[in-house]
Amino acid sequence: MDKLHYEDFNPGETRVTQARTVTREEIVSFAAEFDPQPMHLDEAAGRNSMLGGIAASGWHTCALMFRMNYDEFVRHTASMGAPGIEEVRWLRPVRPGMKLRLRRAVLEKRVSKSRPEMGLIRTRTELLDESDRPVVEQTTTILVAVRHPERTK
Amino acid sequence: MDKLHYEDFNPGETRVTQARTVTREEIVSFAAEFDPQPMHLDEAAGRNSMLGGIAASGWHTCALMFRMNYDEFVRHTASMGAPGIEEVRWLRPVRPGMKLRLRRAVLEKRVSKSRPEMGLIRTRTELLDESDRPVVEQTTTILVAVRHPERTK
Repeated sequence: MDKLHYEDFNPGETRVTQARTVTREEIVSFAAEFDPQPMHLDEAAGRNSMLGGIAASGWHTCALMFRMNYDEFVRHTASMGAPGIEEVRWLRPVRPGMKLRLRRAVLEKRVSKSRPEMGLIRTRTELLDESDRPVVEQTTTILVAVRHPERTK
Repeated sequence: MDKLHYEDFNPGETRVTQARTVTREEIVSFAAEFDPQPMHLDEAAGRNSMLGGIAASGWHTCALMFRMNYDEFVRHTASMGAPGIEEVRWLRPVRPGMKLRLRRAVLEKRVSKSRPEMGLIRTRTELLDESDRPVVEQTTTILVAVRHPERTK
């Protein structure tokens, strides 16, 4: 199947992924390796923290968001990577057993001036809880190949 | 030992961590779980990508940075978390065997208007290669407890 190219992204469009449940084991395992703050490792420590209970490391939520993004979008896209992240906002704790979905909106797009085979697509990506409230929000510009550089201004 | 509080951070100061070597096994293991793009899993796929060789997922570099930050700074700080990330820039590929250090600069600070027991400290954090060139750069505001709210404006 032909991958999605720059031409296939439309500002204003929104897509939502399937749900994924995050487990206590995943939360503790990521935290033990990358963010061993007690509130990510232990229920009692979480209750005594600003998180009000054990919750995933913010960096874990970003990594999970990328995996959900990859499975449903990135692997079907003629992706050329991303230069970075414009902004991440951790809005609410991500707790064991939460069923999460990812919502991605295309904000705007343009073709690179110096590299007409490359498009820049600015996206907002939100991790949603069961009530569709955003728990993490990211803004990122992704690089996507242009299918027909000669026809695309 | 008393932890570092808001009063102990001085705009303009810079600190650098010990070096940490990132291994191929770590790069592949993170990628398999969170970012299974071929250029993060396989040398040949990496060579055929914009990375020019196998290299860590950008999200892996962020997680590593946080662990280095935690080990040398966060665990000695009266941390109250972070509301998000202002910006991440992935500047150069992080490859197996690279010996990395973290440099953290304090950019500015202020006490929260609504919560005088909480300080906001804006930091720039860079992951440095063996030649002290930044390979990843982050800007983040961290929340740190004020030791003497009654004395601090």
